[in-house]
Amino acid sequence: MNETTATCTVTFLPANKSIRVKNGTSLIKAARKTGLHINASCGGAGVCGKCRVLLEEGDLTGGTSEKLTEEDYNRGYRQACIATVSQDVTVRIPEESGRQKGGLATDIPLRHHARMHVFNIDDLKEEDIFYPPVEKLCMELSKPDVHDNRADLGRLIQGLADQHNKHRLVTGLTVMRKIRRTLREKDFLVTVTLEQPVNDKSKSLLLNIQPGRWDHRNFGLAVDIGTTTIHGVLIDLHSGEILAKDSCYNPQMSYGEDVIARIIYAEKPKGLSMMQELVVDAINTIIKNMLKQAVPPEGCGQGAITRDEINSITIAGNTTMTHLLLQLEPDNIRRSPYVPVSTFVPPLHATDLHLELPHHCVALLFPAISSYVGGDIVAGVMGSGMYRTELLTLFIDVGTNAEIVIGNREWLACAACSAGPAFEGGGITHGMRAVDGAISDFSLNPETLEPMNITQGEKAPLGICGSGLLIIAATLFEHGVLSQDGKFNDLDTPRIREGRNGREYVLAWEDECAADHDIVLNEVDIDNFIRAKGAIFAGVFTLLEQVGLQVSDLEQIILAGGFGSYIDLDSAMTVGLLPEVDPDKIVYVGNGSLMGAWMSELSNHIRQDVVNVVRKMTSFELSEISAFKDHYMASTFLPHTDLSLFPKAMGRRKQKSSSHNSPVIA
Amino acid sequence: MNETTATCTVTFLPANKSIRVKNGTSLIKAARKTGLHINASCGGAGVCGKCRVLLEEGDLTGGTSEKLTEEDYNRGYRQACIATVSQDVTVRIPEESGRQKGGLATDIPLRHHARMHVFNIDDLKEEDIFYPPVEKLCMELSKPDVHDNRADLGRLIQGLADQHNKHRLVTGLTVMRKIRRTLREKDFLVTVTLEQPVNDKSKSLLLNIQPGRWDHRNFGLAVDIGTTTIHGVLIDLHSGEILAKDSCYNPQMSYGEDVIARIIYAEKPKGLSMMQELVVDAINTIIKNMLKQAVPPEGCGQGAITRDEINSITIAGNTTMTHLLLQLEPDNIRRSPYVPVSTFVPPLHATDLHLELPHHCVALLFPAISSYVGGDIVAGVMGSGMYRTELLTLFIDVGTNAEIVIGNREWLACAACSAGPAFEGGGITHGMRAVDGAISDFSLNPETLEPMNITQGEKAPLGICGSGLLIIAATLFEHGVLSQDGKFNDLDTPRIREGRNGREYVLAWEDECAADHDIVLNEVDIDNFIRAKGAIFAGVFTLLEQVGLQVSDLEQIILAGGFGSYIDLDSAMTVGLLPEVDPDKIVYVGNGSLMGAWMSELSNHIRQDVVNVVRKMTSFELSEISAFKDHYMASTFLPHTDLSLFPKAMGRRKQKSSSHNSPVIA
Repeated sequence: MNETTATCTVTFLPANKSIRVKNGTSLIKAARKTGLHINASCGGAGVCGKCRVLLEEGDLTGGTSEKLTEEDYNRGYRQACIATVSQDVTVRIPEESGRQKGGLATDIPLRHHARMHVFNIDDLKEEDIFYPPVEKLCMELSKPDVHDNRADLGRLIQGLADQHNKHRLVTGLTVMRKIRRTLREKDFLVTVTLEQPVNDKSKSLLLNIQPGRWDHRNFGLAVDIGTTTIHGVLIDLHSGEILAKDSCYNPQMSYGEDVIARIIYAEKPKGLSMMQELVVDAINTIIKNMLKQAVPPEGCGQGAITRDEINSITIAGNTTMTHLLLQLEPDNIRRSPYVPVSTFVPPLHATDLHLELPHHCVALLFPAISSYVGGDIVAGVMGSGMYRTELLTLFIDVGTNAEIVIGNREWLACAACSAGPAFEGGGITHGMRAVDGAISDFSLNPETLEPMNITQGEKAPLGICGSGLLIIAATLFEHGVLSQDGKFNDLDTPRIREGRNGREYVLAWEDECAADHDIVLNEVDIDNFIRAKGAIFAGVFTLLEQVGLQVSDLEQIILAGGFGSYIDLDSAMTVGLLPEVDPDKIVYVGNGSLMGAWMSELSNHIRQDVVNVVRKMTSFELSEISAFKDHYMASTFLPHTDLSLFPKAMGRRKQKSSSHNSPVIA
Repeated sequence: MNETTATCTVTFLPANKSIRVKNGTSLIKAARKTGLHINASCGGAGVCGKCRVLLEEGDLTGGTSEKLTEEDYNRGYRQACIATVSQDVTVRIPEESGRQKGGLATDIPLRHHARMHVFNIDDLKEEDIFYPPVEKLCMELSKPDVHDNRADLGRLIQGLADQHNKHRLVTGLTVMRKIRRTLREKDFLVTVTLEQPVNDKSKSLLLNIQPGRWDHRNFGLAVDIGTTTIHGVLIDLHSGEILAKDSCYNPQMSYGEDVIARIIYAEKPKGLSMMQELVVDAINTIIKNMLKQAVPPEGCGQGAITRDEINSITIAGNTTMTHLLLQLEPDNIRRSPYVPVSTFVPPLHATDLHLELPHHCVALLFPAISSYVGGDIVAGVMGSGMYRTELLTLFIDVGTNAEIVIGNREWLACAACSAGPAFEGGGITHGMRAVDGAISDFSLNPETLEPMNITQGEKAPLGICGSGLLIIAATLFEHGVLSQDGKFNDLDTPRIREGRNGREYVLAWEDECAADHDIVLNEVDIDNFIRAKGAIFAGVFTLLEQVGLQVSDLEQIILAGGFGSYIDLDSAMTVGLLPEVDPDKIVYVGNGSLMGAWMSELSNHIRQDVVNVVRKMTSFELSEISAFKDHYMASTFLPHTDLSLFPKAMGRRKQKSSSHNSPVIA
């Protein structure tokens, strides 16, 4: 990638608003970022021809298709969705394309995404807690003679006591079998690899022994096993830095999209071992790719990093993913009372899991809280720093199963609720994952109810992804197109019509999109959406209530999970997905699970904190709390039956003009 | 075997001595036990015809061959070596067969073997230290419900804390993988198998889990890996009793008789893994045989004992045997400064050693002291009770390598010396193992110098075994046939003649024995014998000196090893193998190594004692102590150059009558 990407300024008239964007940005995206609406059904495919703008100064690349006559082109018209900027330019959004009224621009809301939480290795170093669970130590031992013929292992152990103050060493056959040669290969100069168990600090495990000086080379892995995606990083345990990254889809996906489907598959004969093989193969591939990519850091010698130099791997995943990796029978996870086999896992050999790593490599798994609050959430609580903040924090990982943690450094409470797959595009008529062609942003011409669809990859629309669904629902609700109970008002526009599943809003017509049908959002979809966001909000509300707090007590919200980074905060509060707080209090942690695993790879202190966090965390089973059902029912409205919880959302809601039937606010 | 074997009384005339023996005993053995000599070259084959006796009362079975005329038979003559008793009988030993002089019997010395040390399980119970390292506990756990959906493993661990006061449990994947089904199979009634590590009493290892009640069935193994023979016992860990025994030759023998030869073989490509396979196969066979034999004790249910119910195996062997079992490179054991890979071994899974035992079976190996004082000696110190006696004790395991331990419950010092294979029949012209045909007892007619050879199995002589060698050498020395420097005096008898290796004594003529040559003992043999006994005595003397003690301080001597039980104590002191002490102070421990392993299987307290014993024991390297060489030189005489050390031996020595040349006493 070019490090100095050229930028230029785009000025929109009549709003007279400017923005600096990278060369190559489409005009429609520039408008969206500026907070200006341009009618655009086709999402950038250039087929709807509705996004005409007039070039006034400078020039654009592209911007024409069969939808534009040569005459119009010559007059300066361009199609905003297929015109890209490469120099400073001024364009005018004509009245028919925009949403200005009487010549004045009406801004559309800018998107507010949560600011990103970043993990800083230097913090560990400053706090003096940077010491990986596996360390390497070099020693020169005295050579045996007739006055000192101690056994090789005894000599080594005494050396560790004398030279490194390490006492109570435990080792195994593998080290014993190679020690004789290893000691003598470089004349009793040796490097040992030691694991310091978290639960017994007085003891060290002697994992490996190498001839000569190798204490400058010590590498580890952190892996997050998501239900959908597996991420890994290769870490230099000396500096703490990430040397390589890789990820892939979780290949178990072919046998079921969600954890329940995976569990059902695992219950079949050989299903469990197959599930394990799939995830292990995927991790092995990630390891191979990372070793190929990685360049050894400076001061680390010349040689490429080899598999044999990986001394530890920390793995985080939800409870089901962890069960499948370990070949623990997950059957009872999906059946009330939802009993996992185990929530903690002792340190293992990586080879016990068939990982293509050396026998001396330790595999450390994040402990879980319960069947539905897994090691990934514990890792997220670590990675996001929630476990050590004084701020009263709400942590939400939004997905098919939403996990909620409330608390701070003093105490923690958690619960999980099943939101359904709406936020991942599931259960929505034209829902899809956030890939090319997914409508992921949206605005509405309040007069004409014409949409501005922004798609992933600026491809012709194919469907609606989770973040798009949230914004579309919020926008339609804000403009009074949707009623509080999620029904379409009977407005005078071809975009709203009766469909097979109640009324529906047509986002894109068949001839404008990549699908062989109109792309619509219908009332059943809205209902699924409302139930998903309602479950999450009710979960938050119930858990707060259980610990004697209310929304206004929250000092911080941490969003985790893939979806979290795309959530438009205003939309989320408008529809009642997130409680209404100052957006500055909201942080996005990215892959908190991977971050927590990375941190654990660097600090035994943090591994101890993990144990403490798990001990500290109280798990609530929402299905067993009768108030939860009431809160859920109250949350299945936009934004909620109790509007006092969402004062700003109701302020954002604009009643449709009297020319339409006003929706009745319950 | 008949429990009430019939006995009868044999009376010998003219000595008029009687003895009760079992029916079926040969007359010559009865005479030997009575302390009477009967000339007998052929050891019971009936071919020399020298052992004629005269039946005076009662009757004998057999006792005739072609060597006896019908006339003599009718007169009452019988051949003592082939006549067996089945009723009370009186026989007369005629002058030509016996050693009576002028009609009076001259007694030959009775054999004094050391009394046997017996391990008593009740002692452990009385001292309240009967608790095997692996125990089984049964529990009924509460069932999960919506108010208590703890993980299966967490529930089990809590149950162990609540019901059995077991805290800090550690387990592995194998248990985790079966716990879900196991808990539910008998409705949350389960039996767990726990190992209590000796080095960390606060922690328990959860080895196995079974559905239902199985805490009454808990079995273990103790195995002694000798260089020559492997012994095993199957133990009921509830009662402590041995349920089955088996043994076999160590199949590594085919690749070398002694440890040095085994090490040399192990240094070859694949030699080490082959040595391991051989010993492991042998142990596996022993296990199979014992499981076949064993009958479950009462109160243990009906089912046969299965492999899966064996939860621990304790193994003792010398340092080389232990290295070969573990596939540790033994190379440096045979090279100065004699450095083993390790003297201690962490607890292992039996499956790590390829033993055909369940994965949950723990393998516990006895720690060693040095390359030549191995785990078998440590086990012997345990098994013999030396580690807890207040008596100042000398422990000797006599073999090719003799190991010596001096001390008591307060302190221990040890050393090893290479005696050479004389005591195992090696390096002796007609030496052999103690099998059928080996001359193992002997007396001498002082007038005629005719021998009375007693052989193993009463077969025609084939050679001389270790215990026979000791008695023959002592007897020849006592009768002045051998000089103090181990040379034959020139006496007037065809039994003594010049041979290829100096003078020799003919024990049996070719036509009397199973070999195709005369069986002799020559001066080179005597020299090898003297060097063997001299090395051991010098080792004892040097070690005593190192700790500031002398022979007269010894309050107890413990003999160990296969040879130990056959040692005639008077002979051993006559030749200067053992220091001269009251024979009542001498104890034989049998297979002390196996006994120590058995004790360890029954008591973690004893396992802790093993650790303490090893810590307590100071190892001396005799080759590094200059005085050892002097003591060795002084010991290469019969019994020693310093005769004040052996006052009784010299008293036993009878000068040859003046008709022969008296040997010169140096």
